[in-house]
Amino acid sequence: MITRREFLASGAAFLSQVGAGRNERLVVRSESPADFETPVSLLDRSWITPNDVHFVRSHLRTPRVSLETWRLKIDGEVERPLSLTLQDLARYPRVDQAVTLECAGNGRAFHDPPVAGIQWEKGAVGTGRWTGVRLVDVLRDAGVKSSGKHLVADGADSPIGNVPDFIRSIPLEKALHPATMLATQMNGEPVPLDHGFPLRLIVPGWEGAASTKWLVHLQVSEREFDGFFEQTAYRIPTRYVAPGEAVDPSDTTPYTELQVKSIVTAPLDGAPVRAGSTIELRGFAWAGEAEIVSVDVSTDLGRTWGAATLGADRAPYAWRRWSFPWRADRPGSYVAMCRATDTRGRTQPILAQWNPAGYLWNVIDKVRIDVQP
Amino acid sequence: MITRREFLASGAAFLSQVGAGRNERLVVRSESPADFETPVSLLDRSWITPNDVHFVRSHLRTPRVSLETWRLKIDGEVERPLSLTLQDLARYPRVDQAVTLECAGNGRAFHDPPVAGIQWEKGAVGTGRWTGVRLVDVLRDAGVKSSGKHLVADGADSPIGNVPDFIRSIPLEKALHPATMLATQMNGEPVPLDHGFPLRLIVPGWEGAASTKWLVHLQVSEREFDGFFEQTAYRIPTRYVAPGEAVDPSDTTPYTELQVKSIVTAPLDGAPVRAGSTIELRGFAWAGEAEIVSVDVSTDLGRTWGAATLGADRAPYAWRRWSFPWRADRPGSYVAMCRATDTRGRTQPILAQWNPAGYLWNVIDKVRIDVQP
Repeated sequence: MITRREFLASGAAFLSQVGAGRNERLVVRSESPADFETPVSLLDRSWITPNDVHFVRSHLRTPRVSLETWRLKIDGEVERPLSLTLQDLARYPRVDQAVTLECAGNGRAFHDPPVAGIQWEKGAVGTGRWTGVRLVDVLRDAGVKSSGKHLVADGADSPIGNVPDFIRSIPLEKALHPATMLATQMNGEPVPLDHGFPLRLIVPGWEGAASTKWLVHLQVSEREFDGFFEQTAYRIPTRYVAPGEAVDPSDTTPYTELQVKSIVTAPLDGAPVRAGSTIELRGFAWAGEAEIVSVDVSTDLGRTWGAATLGADRAPYAWRRWSFPWRADRPGSYVAMCRATDTRGRTQPILAQWNPAGYLWNVIDKVRIDVQP
Repeated sequence: MITRREFLASGAAFLSQVGAGRNERLVVRSESPADFETPVSLLDRSWITPNDVHFVRSHLRTPRVSLETWRLKIDGEVERPLSLTLQDLARYPRVDQAVTLECAGNGRAFHDPPVAGIQWEKGAVGTGRWTGVRLVDVLRDAGVKSSGKHLVADGADSPIGNVPDFIRSIPLEKALHPATMLATQMNGEPVPLDHGFPLRLIVPGWEGAASTKWLVHLQVSEREFDGFFEQTAYRIPTRYVAPGEAVDPSDTTPYTELQVKSIVTAPLDGAPVRAGSTIELRGFAWAGEAEIVSVDVSTDLGRTWGAATLGADRAPYAWRRWSFPWRADRPGSYVAMCRATDTRGRTQPILAQWNPAGYLWNVIDKVRIDVQP
């Protein structure tokens, strides 16, 4: 998978991409930790999100990894603990897949009452083509013991102040799924520093925090990880919660698979359109581990809906483009809404499922369109 | 229609009902003018809304009408101007119908951004059984000229300060519709003072302000009435308006027929319910001049919908009861929503059609249900 030349190129990329490689129109939610949101206008341009456009979510300072000493350690409930270089990983069969990653908190800004945390709007989501190896192939060589039930993943980033180390776990079943991978490339380039250089765990269909960046350590464990980012953060209520209601930690569970969701990426919210012209309403829809069956569009405040056309580009864990031609004959302020349905019959709600951490935002999306005379 | 005994009883009712005859749980929006809203808990009790429970909407001080001098004058573009006593009206064939009246501003409090005006929530609506005569029968005796296109209606109330007289007009076609009536009784009693004693114009299917109270004068006119309550108030935009947007008067038209709408009347918003018990979700649905075809209910934030059962009580211009048995197995904060569809295929929107006067609120209604362990 990674040649010696690529390996060296990775080093160059590392040096050149500290704080670089970000489209200047990304919305800065935080400089350090690096948290950058993609405006929908940039998402709209392509099915695959370019590296410099893809949203960035980090919890701690971006680590500077030395490729000379970098290793991926695999231990815990395994027969043969491993310590692997990138060249070692390159010996496994290479896999390549488009995966939509979405931050668990994408849409947090829309929750009412407001919720503390990064105020992501619509653009903490993106789709990259990830190249690497199947995690299951590597774990097979380590020999997972029957006592192993969870896989704890840690990156090279370190605790700062009162923010603990970013360590999370996924159930072993998901770790052994053939789609779960160790990625060294994103869209044909070494994984950029913002996105986990040199190695990122990619957990397709799950909320983005499952896909640990700057991966250095995988520990097979008998238990779910016992730290902050598994037991306190990234958890959702196990029951319906009233807006503003406190939730007992015992009534929560880790947020894992993404929900069904869609967004409008064109026209932009509030965009002017000439009456009588036909425009293309456009966007993306995704559904975690399921697939999108349909996207419906309404331009009459949600009274009636018409089926959008789904794009030809598709992959099991990637979003689907949708488009819908629309002609506004009369001037006025219209609202375009989109609602996706997936292979499990899940669809998007009218009202939010509020929760104290501001996750799960998948309310029917909307933009206002200003049809002018 | 009105016997001499009833006539005298009416006078007694007049004297006794100045400021009386209102259920003490009505919500006071204004004491004078008299504006009272019905809590949904009271609406829920019956298909026909009792007189003391029915919402009250007045624009000016409630007039004290002397039955000895009271006349209904009919003039303008007619062959034979008339001046009628209640006894004169009693000679026409008697009609009786259940009619749902809804204030144009019902739901104004929910508009965002907020709109000036009485902050009606859900209860500026009610259904009375109105008894009286067909307006068309009376107008036939007056002999409407072919030049007559509108009917201007004036009540006995008078201008106060800078509030002009409450005078409005309806197109002649609606005035001649056999359902449009002059009502002397409401639910078997003389029309209470709050509701227009001794005579109220009832314009079924139209917003409540069309049904002029304390009626004393009908003028057949070549034109729509040229005063404040026809040319400035009770008008809606002729195009979609963005929330908060100013609207040029030339882009407005009188608000006439009611929209399709439904409300939840039980359980009450936020009501506690025991997990595992089956409760009846209940409410009303109405559709102006059309009829309700179905009401659908969602208890999963609007993802999926089930058909409610419609009540047996019905009349062409009256609301329909709906009910939906529901069992919440698990504790949590649920939302019950209802959405009505009518014989014209109209249904309720997800988002409001905002307008500067705060009319047209018919967004899918909802209540929160607190399912407890």
